[in-house]
Amino acid sequence: MIYLDNSATTKPFPEVIDSFVTVATKYFGNPSSLHELGRKAERLLIQSREQVAALLDVKPNEIIFTSGGTEANNFAIKGVAFQYRQRGNHIITTAIEHPSVAEPCRQLEELGFEVTYLPVNENGVIDVEELARALRNDTILVSVMHVNNEVGSIQPIEQIGRLLQQYPKTFFHVDHVQGIGKVPLDLKKAHVDLCTMSAHKFHGLRGAGILYVRNGIRLSPLLAGGGQELQLRSGTENVAAIVAMTKALRMSLEAYERQSSRLLAIKEQWLNELKNIADIHINTPLDHSAPHIINFSLNGLKSEVFVHELAKQQIFVSTTSACSSKKRAPSKTLVAMGVEQKQAESSIRISLSYENTLEEIPVAIRAIKAAIKKLQEVTR
Amino acid sequence: MIYLDNSATTKPFPEVIDSFVTVATKYFGNPSSLHELGRKAERLLIQSREQVAALLDVKPNEIIFTSGGTEANNFAIKGVAFQYRQRGNHIITTAIEHPSVAEPCRQLEELGFEVTYLPVNENGVIDVEELARALRNDTILVSVMHVNNEVGSIQPIEQIGRLLQQYPKTFFHVDHVQGIGKVPLDLKKAHVDLCTMSAHKFHGLRGAGILYVRNGIRLSPLLAGGGQELQLRSGTENVAAIVAMTKALRMSLEAYERQSSRLLAIKEQWLNELKNIADIHINTPLDHSAPHIINFSLNGLKSEVFVHELAKQQIFVSTTSACSSKKRAPSKTLVAMGVEQKQAESSIRISLSYENTLEEIPVAIRAIKAAIKKLQEVTR
Ligand SMILES: Cc1ncc(COP(=O)(O)O)c(C=O)c1O
Ligand SMILES: Cc1ncc(COP(=O)(O)O)c(C=O)c1O
Repeated sequence: MIYLDNSATTKPFPEVIDSFVTVATKYFGNPSSLHELGRKAERLLIQSREQVAALLDVKPNEIIFTSGGTEANNFAIKGVAFQYRQRGNHIITTAIEHPSVAEPCRQLEELGFEVTYLPVNENGVIDVEELARALRNDTILVSVMHVNNEVGSIQPIEQIGRLLQQYPKTFFHVDHVQGIGKVPLDLKKAHVDLCTMSAHKFHGLRGAGILYVRNGIRLSPLLAGGGQELQLRSGTENVAAIVAMTKALRMSLEAYERQSSRLLAIKEQWLNELKNIADIHINTPLDHSAPHIINFSLNGLKSEVFVHELAKQQIFVSTTSACSSKKRAPSKTLVAMGVEQKQAESSIRISLSYENTLEEIPVAIRAIKAAIKKLQEVTR
Repeated sequence: MIYLDNSATTKPFPEVIDSFVTVATKYFGNPSSLHELGRKAERLLIQSREQVAALLDVKPNEIIFTSGGTEANNFAIKGVAFQYRQRGNHIITTAIEHPSVAEPCRQLEELGFEVTYLPVNENGVIDVEELARALRNDTILVSVMHVNNEVGSIQPIEQIGRLLQQYPKTFFHVDHVQGIGKVPLDLKKAHVDLCTMSAHKFHGLRGAGILYVRNGIRLSPLLAGGGQELQLRSGTENVAAIVAMTKALRMSLEAYERQSSRLLAIKEQWLNELKNIADIHINTPLDHSAPHIINFSLNGLKSEVFVHELAKQQIFVSTTSACSSKKRAPSKTLVAMGVEQKQAESSIRISLSYENTLEEIPVAIRAIKAAIKKLQEVTR
């Protein structure tokens, strides 16, 4: 198997599954229970919060555990909107956000909020000056993703953070789901107020995610109830998945330290090979894009059939982001970048992790060439 | 270990953990991915939905998987409120709901909704006639729990459902988190529109819950995004936890079939023994209460110290619901039942599962008597 769909989800590290099982079996108590079983679980939770905070270089009480990236994004956006609606009702985001940012914004529009969607250039990057011009007195939130999940373009988060320093009433949320462990982001240096991460994108297990909430920011709870997670996110804590995520985060950041140049070399090799195929057009910007995402178009060939063709050889790629792939709509990021419809409709995404190797490339490239040839013959 | 805190959380069945591990390891694909790995995961998800629906005697497209009970309760309540706010802004609930119902209601009050909190009698049960009187033209939702988590009282869900048949514009939500597998509820017969369940309360794993949404009801998504879960609940699906929960639900309903009378006998035996202890006052209504929850008061002794005393003997009980136990406030259900402050403050909850045995009782009772004696001596 050659798994090239790591932006959809990653294979959990075996060590991470082991941790999950140990906690779910031996420390199954409810962290809110007063007795010893509860206290043991609570201690694991506290340790996880401290470790995640240390890994991200923030304070433990700035880490809120959620059920995943979608919840964290909804919580950040709706949490600010409902908490600070007296202050203003304007939100700025981009045209290329993941649906878990775009949809909450659309819901807020229905409730009377106003949302500005910043366009991107041909490299899939917004213009910070345009953002500056869009800022208003009543702008309560700017939400910009770090690494785009469809093409891998990187937004100028530090520059935006610096700009927003002049707007102390405007909070800055960053969807870092695709960036963590791949493209560094210093939350403090970039003046990020809220930041989303999701365990299953870095070899953790589904059921856990992180919302970083800078001290001093209040959010209206999305999941209100028993008051867990520092009163911000209720629900009996998924301690096993949180401990597992903490391990996955540590391992992923270590992998970055040791292997980021290897990952970059793999991406370069992929690009070199793909560029040599006549019918392929690379959509991912060559400069300043993430080391693990390559998006290319198949010159009008049906990308879905292509995915199935490769899957026959146990090679797994994607047409676009996973959650959009069944809607058969062209990638909205490509459309926003100005890629023409036909190209956008025949796009393929390869997404890597530190588990991928250089050795896979010739095997996969041979299969890609064969699949293109077959599709061309069928189409003719 | 004698674990008597099953209403806080249960020990996951080993078979359930095995299922989780198998799915997380071998079927880790994103169900939205088009390729074979995605399709295998999708198939497991479809099967789980069908099995859960069959077990609950409803349709597969009426089952929405969530991250747990708190999310399902927030989703049901806010989902109705935001979707149907044009229709009316009045909600009816009870004074004894779990915080994951009470808090969303409070949040909606802040947003301009009006909420009626029905009182309960000395048995912890609402008066359906009082509910009938509270219903208005603009009542969009009635939310009443089935089994109370603090004392085990059972609300007349079928009777309420029948009453609400005359109010087709008012939806009926039931928090069934403590009832499932212990006190049967026929969703169709009781005319329930929305119903919450949570995996970790029936030996499943945290990270999964269920919201039953009757066909024909639309909800404004709480977690908006990629459109998973029939467009109602976005986020990459936690397939492993969902498959595990499905198994836990089947096993728990089988346990009910085979062992409900054994569980009832255990509860009766507990009650007999507890009643014989002079300083104990039983708060749980003796008639028509759940077979797994017994709440009693210690005649003014400090319940928290009592919990720790028993924990020394590896016997685990609770002062009140887990999520309230650290707040040290008296149980709100007991207060609503009219139990006097001093009694309410010295309350203890024992909560059973099918894993408990008759043999545990004499051991635990001896420890309880010893703990009472010790506390009395310290207090004197
Ligand atoms: C950029 C981005 N944000 C958010 C999400 C949502 O994360 P989750 O699947 O954990 O809900 C994803 C992945 O699906 C993503 O790629
Ligand atoms: C009656 C009731 N409703 C809802 C919940 C919340 O469930 P969860 O812990 O899965 O969020 C609980 C337990 O905590 C409960 O006892």
